[in-house]
Amino acid sequence: MSGLEKPAGNMLWGGRFTGGLDPLMVQYNESIYFDKILYKQDILGSIAFARANAKSGIISQDEFKKLEEGLLAVQKEWEAGTFVIVPGVDEDIHTANERRLGEMIGKDVAGKLHTGRSRNEQIATDMRMWLRDELRTIEEHLRAFLSVIAARAEKEIEFIMPGYTHLQRAQPIRWSHWMLSYGFAFASDLERLGEVIKRVNRSALGCGALAGNPFNIDRDMMSEELGFENLLWNSMGGVADRDFVTETLQWGAMLMQHISRWSEDLIIYSSGEFGFVRLADAYSTGSSLMPQKKNPDSLELLRGKSGRAFGHMAGFMMTQKGLPSTYNKDLQESVEPMLDHVKTVSDSIQIANGVLATLAIQPKRMEASLDPFMLATDLADYLVRKGVPFRETHHISGRCVALSEQTGTPMNELTYEQLKGVDARFDEDISEVFNYEKSVEMRSARGGTSKSSVLEQIKVLRAMIENEA
Amino acid sequence: MSGLEKPAGNMLWGGRFTGGLDPLMVQYNESIYFDKILYKQDILGSIAFARANAKSGIISQDEFKKLEEGLLAVQKEWEAGTFVIVPGVDEDIHTANERRLGEMIGKDVAGKLHTGRSRNEQIATDMRMWLRDELRTIEEHLRAFLSVIAARAEKEIEFIMPGYTHLQRAQPIRWSHWMLSYGFAFASDLERLGEVIKRVNRSALGCGALAGNPFNIDRDMMSEELGFENLLWNSMGGVADRDFVTETLQWGAMLMQHISRWSEDLIIYSSGEFGFVRLADAYSTGSSLMPQKKNPDSLELLRGKSGRAFGHMAGFMMTQKGLPSTYNKDLQESVEPMLDHVKTVSDSIQIANGVLATLAIQPKRMEASLDPFMLATDLADYLVRKGVPFRETHHISGRCVALSEQTGTPMNELTYEQLKGVDARFDEDISEVFNYEKSVEMRSARGGTSKSSVLEQIKVLRAMIENEA
Amino acid sequence: MSGLEKPAGNMLWGGRFTGGLDPLMVQYNESIYFDKILYKQDILGSIAFARANAKSGIISQDEFKKLEEGLLAVQKEWEAGTFVIVPGVDEDIHTANERRLGEMIGKDVAGKLHTGRSRNEQIATDMRMWLRDELRTIEEHLRAFLSVIAARAEKEIEFIMPGYTHLQRAQPIRWSHWMLSYGFAFASDLERLGEVIKRVNRSALGCGALAGNPFNIDRDMMSEELGFENLLWNSMGGVADRDFVTETLQWGAMLMQHISRWSEDLIIYSSGEFGFVRLADAYSTGSSLMPQKKNPDSLELLRGKSGRAFGHMAGFMMTQKGLPSTYNKDLQESVEPMLDHVKTVSDSIQIANGVLATLAIQPKRMEASLDPFMLATDLADYLVRKGVPFRETHHISGRCVALSEQTGTPMNELTYEQLKGVDARFDEDISEVFNYEKSVEMRSARGGTSKSSVLEQIKVLRAMIENEA
Amino acid sequence: MSGLEKPAGNMLWGGRFTGGLDPLMVQYNESIYFDKILYKQDILGSIAFARANAKSGIISQDEFKKLEEGLLAVQKEWEAGTFVIVPGVDEDIHTANERRLGEMIGKDVAGKLHTGRSRNEQIATDMRMWLRDELRTIEEHLRAFLSVIAARAEKEIEFIMPGYTHLQRAQPIRWSHWMLSYGFAFASDLERLGEVIKRVNRSALGCGALAGNPFNIDRDMMSEELGFENLLWNSMGGVADRDFVTETLQWGAMLMQHISRWSEDLIIYSSGEFGFVRLADAYSTGSSLMPQKKNPDSLELLRGKSGRAFGHMAGFMMTQKGLPSTYNKDLQESVEPMLDHVKTVSDSIQIANGVLATLAIQPKRMEASLDPFMLATDLADYLVRKGVPFRETHHISGRCVALSEQTGTPMNELTYEQLKGVDARFDEDISEVFNYEKSVEMRSARGGTSKSSVLEQIKVLRAMIENEA
Repeated sequence: MSGLEKPAGNMLWGGRFTGGLDPLMVQYNESIYFDKILYKQDILGSIAFARANAKSGIISQDEFKKLEEGLLAVQKEWEAGTFVIVPGVDEDIHTANERRLGEMIGKDVAGKLHTGRSRNEQIATDMRMWLRDELRTIEEHLRAFLSVIAARAEKEIEFIMPGYTHLQRAQPIRWSHWMLSYGFAFASDLERLGEVIKRVNRSALGCGALAGNPFNIDRDMMSEELGFENLLWNSMGGVADRDFVTETLQWGAMLMQHISRWSEDLIIYSSGEFGFVRLADAYSTGSSLMPQKKNPDSLELLRGKSGRAFGHMAGFMMTQKGLPSTYNKDLQESVEPMLDHVKTVSDSIQIANGVLATLAIQPKRMEASLDPFMLATDLADYLVRKGVPFRETHHISGRCVALSEQTGTPMNELTYEQLKGVDARFDEDISEVFNYEKSVEMRSARGGTSKSSVLEQIKVLRAMIENEA
Repeated sequence: MSGLEKPAGNMLWGGRFTGGLDPLMVQYNESIYFDKILYKQDILGSIAFARANAKSGIISQDEFKKLEEGLLAVQKEWEAGTFVIVPGVDEDIHTANERRLGEMIGKDVAGKLHTGRSRNEQIATDMRMWLRDELRTIEEHLRAFLSVIAARAEKEIEFIMPGYTHLQRAQPIRWSHWMLSYGFAFASDLERLGEVIKRVNRSALGCGALAGNPFNIDRDMMSEELGFENLLWNSMGGVADRDFVTETLQWGAMLMQHISRWSEDLIIYSSGEFGFVRLADAYSTGSSLMPQKKNPDSLELLRGKSGRAFGHMAGFMMTQKGLPSTYNKDLQESVEPMLDHVKTVSDSIQIANGVLATLAIQPKRMEASLDPFMLATDLADYLVRKGVPFRETHHISGRCVALSEQTGTPMNELTYEQLKGVDARFDEDISEVFNYEKSVEMRSARGGTSKSSVLEQIKVLRAMIENEA
Repeated sequence: MSGLEKPAGNMLWGGRFTGGLDPLMVQYNESIYFDKILYKQDILGSIAFARANAKSGIISQDEFKKLEEGLLAVQKEWEAGTFVIVPGVDEDIHTANERRLGEMIGKDVAGKLHTGRSRNEQIATDMRMWLRDELRTIEEHLRAFLSVIAARAEKEIEFIMPGYTHLQRAQPIRWSHWMLSYGFAFASDLERLGEVIKRVNRSALGCGALAGNPFNIDRDMMSEELGFENLLWNSMGGVADRDFVTETLQWGAMLMQHISRWSEDLIIYSSGEFGFVRLADAYSTGSSLMPQKKNPDSLELLRGKSGRAFGHMAGFMMTQKGLPSTYNKDLQESVEPMLDHVKTVSDSIQIANGVLATLAIQPKRMEASLDPFMLATDLADYLVRKGVPFRETHHISGRCVALSEQTGTPMNELTYEQLKGVDARFDEDISEVFNYEKSVEMRSARGGTSKSSVLEQIKVLRAMIENEA
Repeated sequence: MSGLEKPAGNMLWGGRFTGGLDPLMVQYNESIYFDKILYKQDILGSIAFARANAKSGIISQDEFKKLEEGLLAVQKEWEAGTFVIVPGVDEDIHTANERRLGEMIGKDVAGKLHTGRSRNEQIATDMRMWLRDELRTIEEHLRAFLSVIAARAEKEIEFIMPGYTHLQRAQPIRWSHWMLSYGFAFASDLERLGEVIKRVNRSALGCGALAGNPFNIDRDMMSEELGFENLLWNSMGGVADRDFVTETLQWGAMLMQHISRWSEDLIIYSSGEFGFVRLADAYSTGSSLMPQKKNPDSLELLRGKSGRAFGHMAGFMMTQKGLPSTYNKDLQESVEPMLDHVKTVSDSIQIANGVLATLAIQPKRMEASLDPFMLATDLADYLVRKGVPFRETHHISGRCVALSEQTGTPMNELTYEQLKGVDARFDEDISEVFNYEKSVEMRSARGGTSKSSVLEQIKVLRAMIENEA
């Protein structure tokens, strides 16, 4: 029922409008301008519903045929862009489709489509079908991105750069190791996505307004026709449950957090002071004022949109909080965040993929940023191998660092005698410690920076991409 | 600079696209399809900027005249709906306006418009002007809503209903008292809004990209021309500061929380079991399945949209967190939440006003829901007036409640003897206690339910509406 | 290293403190007062680490034995409550345990414990072990709650109450159906929890500070000893990844949303106007002022704490946003929300279980609230069975509703003639429609309100409880 | 009433506990372990209430004296640390104080304290008094921090560093200009704080449980005694309103966002690659593994705690959403976030102050990071002054940048001939453009980087600090 009826009684209180209807309320209430995106799902769901009603005999096979043909004709109008929404009447996609169906096949038969059905179950069904398909597309985008990570990690395994903790140079790592660190976060996103889709893909059709279907409809048949994996098992829950949206939003908000951290690293690495990477022009923009500027706009948008994605989630969780059970109109607020979230996440994965696929690395800047102090742990480890307790070696190495700073001599240029002066247990082979490549190779336990460890990681990552396929 | 350039180098990594540009990035980056709403502010800001540049002599008065005429002509195209956005070129409103200006008055003069200016200061200026004007309109909507509250409270002061704590009947109150309880919350929103507008209405023009203006532009003159109340005093802060958006979103999220609680009360009061109020048809909708239903959709949407408003705020705060100083492209994500928030809040206040102005109350249902147990405190207070310590009277009254429950006799129908049996200090005038009207009138301290207290509240509320005017 | 060192240089700027250290910074930085809860996990992790170091030969078997004995002795002190934290020195649990170990077994051997290890991998390991165990306990609480739901639903299947949409009476349902509607939401929580635990239970041990372990430690051996199911496959990711916390917080925030809705229903149902349920005294409280009050404090706290749980999640997601990769001290902020969240969720499930297990239902109040209008859909369905298109029957039924309202006659008391006057297709058997029991039984499709459907739901729910076991 | 009573009826459902009470519920419900912090406010509020009751004659002056003396004696116990909480009985601070008062002065008089009063108004009063005082202390911390900013900005005005947009070097700025950019953000926080305090400092005393006070208490007298600036004007709103908490949380969350951005800048500036600043040892920590590390832990904690502060706000707003009016137990969840928020914000401002006051800057590293390309805008501006349209000069300057890159010649070392080759309008004085000091001084409009502009900013900032005092 549209909001076009008269308000009860006269307007005693000098309110906002004086006529019998409130056009703002019509607009505040209607969802057609965003839920029309679900036109196809709505039609497929209607066909499945009519087929099941025909099976149980509440409508005839002949009526079903007419309904099916009519619905497919309506669908063609949407696809051709010729469907004309009637403002103020077609308040939502369900109403619009049924209104048009009636015009096409006559109200006598069209009026049987909704037999035993409620818009409450329809919208849940439409949203779940749409979201399931979109998430499967996102799955493919994510796999493509992971494949680029794995490919680059394999081909660029030789490049060594500083690894940071607290944004302070810590220990040398392979550039590939950095890429893979995010690779595994995104692989977890892929794993989680499969779990989310499983729960999205459950059927609400046959739940009625809240209490179920009175014509003994075959819910399993409809579920199978529409590609659902399982039923929602309680009709009240079936119409009220928007957890499939919340889960998607939580999932996407976490993925976007990974993207925000990945972008942050790359933004810092593309600063003039770091200079490790250069973005392709396609993913940079210039300045309207400063001709020399090349800004990593793509990465900043990726980072910024992590907020947008979080906002969808936080907002919709707020909407659901403390709602009484079953359908309340508040739930209409689930549609728009879902639509914008799916677009945001889908676009962002693709942009991130494009950025990475076209990124130029600057190995010389990486190398130039390596600092002998980053080998201080290796210096300590050297003594550990000679049996000195780690805590002591840590202090000894710290004294070498101090000596280097006081004398202004890079640590790797301290003479053997100087080092010996700090601790007598240093032998001449200490000089071999000052080698970034060796340092990286020493970390050969699983998950470490040695070439073999990194190659193993790539193998594991690829299996994670495939296993999900 | 648009994203239409070629990516650097060939695509080694089998990325998503193979040509020289990424159309998705163009779309991901461009803001024109939402920031075009700022066309007028952008043009007014440009005129003020050109005038100030003419004053300082960096452009001539003649050039200024041409710029001004051209800009006004561009504005007319927007107003007439004839402005044609060039896809992929007009990435934002600033670019679009300047591009069109150049076509109209020639690039020689149009090319001087941006002298010493940056889009960073432009967007901040445009947004602040737009938001200031919108918030002033919202201020008026809020005043109108408050006026309806005050008017209804005054006219319907006689109706008594149960007051609840913990959603349990507690003490009788006036219906007007309930309305005013929200009235003062909304009046605080009005007070806060004035403070927010004050900080929105500060000028960033003349801040440049980050370091200020090199042609000694007269920032005060521009600020005055554009109706700003104050300058942003540091150029880096001036371009980076989106606190005016955050503050607006925080303000709106809190207002919408008030609306969510107000709606919750009214939804409960309009249930069949309570039945205190009936919404006008204009603000209700029916069910596609259940013919008898009349659902308070307007109130549910109001309650639900409190989540949407919160999501804007939470999302944008996430976007800003940990950003390096000055302008980062992440800040582009401030525009859309601002636009949708302003619409959400503005519409919601007007809908709430419409709901209240047309609401029918059911005084008989209110009265029927009053329960003698709600006078148990008055019973205790009766003994307090006879000098019995409150803690003791509280227990005595509790025993009367228990007696009523055990005997199945409504508390106000317990005989004098029965009450006397509970405590000998009850006199015959105890029967006068069982009077809801009297109970309400007893609470005559400021802020209470007596008629004089309620009338005083209305007076205070009206002063709050006026003082802000 | 504690914060007890001198600040560099003199305090030029008139700062807050003048001595060489800032006691507030010591307190701001230290985590011992909350991370001491991880003492046992820290010690077990240390033993596993030392055992693996002994296996690879970097420490001797003898040294390992001493370390193990010493660590177990430290554990005993914690368990006995005799461990004395040294303020300003024991900044975290790792430091505290190693400090005490040194005092017990001497620094020579104790100083070897940390060989090749970083606190970065330690804290991740400790937190994951602790959380895994806590979540498994929560799993049991959730199963217990679900079992009560299933048991009550089975035993109280006969009671019929109004089902609501938009908080308006819609169609009759079984009380069991209401309980099960939440049962399936909580069963989904159980399903998700299993997935979360799987990802929590991955080992970071052997990841070093960020680059991996230089002594070729056997990560698989350690992982197995500590009960982990899998490794974290990239050392940088291993130390930086707090997704296991985020996922837990997202999971708990969603569960608490279910609890908020469940509580909201019960709070409304326990109001005087509805009166469907009465809470046990153990879960209610009285008023300090109003002797008659019995407030559903337990349910309100449950509902309110859904905010707290959300706040943990939202806050920690904010903390992580845009962080550079690997360990940053910001991540210390992951511990406290995790601890409070686990307590909040665990307590809340148990309280909800207690509330439900002791709840008294008021079947007569449920019955009294049933309203003939709730059978309007059944009236329409009656005609559907006679071949009238649903849309038409919906209008006919609507006219019957209107007739009832106009004549003041309850719909089920309209005469056959009156109904016939509305539509000639009504036969005398129309009177059979006005039966709530029959209405409920008509909805016999899967997931509906009929007894067989509800019993099937109980069976499915129990399988979900068991399958997860 | 504590939760110690028996649950109604036997435990049919195999619930969690079998005895008559649920100890977990007692603990879940009680607030004493955190709200005891309000003991003093609770006592002062009680004294004011008793005094007003004596004035209106409902208790005698003699009774008031006894109450006052007793209450002050209870306060002394708290202050001496000798107050003994009775577990399971003293569920909150109000109950605890009144219980102890009764033991001290006898129940006859103590039992009169609560006359006409509700815990609902008490907790609101206690929280507002406590928060008002804490916020005033925070105001002083903020002023102290702002004073350090102003002092450093004045003394270190000569140092020039790169200014960034998009984290790319953009234009040279003064180090002081950077400090002031945050200074004005914090000054806005100070301005907002004054507005928040104004709304916190309103009196709920005399509002009763919800309906007001039945003994005509003098609310103004109590308000004045307790230092409130205004009354809450509606008794229902007075007990339900926690906006003063929400506003404080919103305020603190925004301040912490400023701190997160300030910290982010300083963390980047203290990286090895930037090297502009060095933190004092007091605000840094080392690594347990890597001896060379000096990590900016203080800044990372400041940045991380912006999430915590946001979480308080987001969580409590969730708690309030959709609550029915007046007091609901959900509101108990307002206390803990308020307490932790106040501590977090207060500590963080002081830590930030300490960090800044002891920070060592590295002017040579700042200078070394300046890059001739940062003068490209100045090059364009040079031609603008010769009448060339800015858009053209922007392209010419861009070609000079390209020439520099192609020839590998720093832009400031391009010969006059080379520049002339790009555009004939360059004169020999073009060489004067390549001067960072001059560039900074050119931006002399208000808010810019010139010395006079920066000094003016300092003056304005100091006025903002003072005006608020």
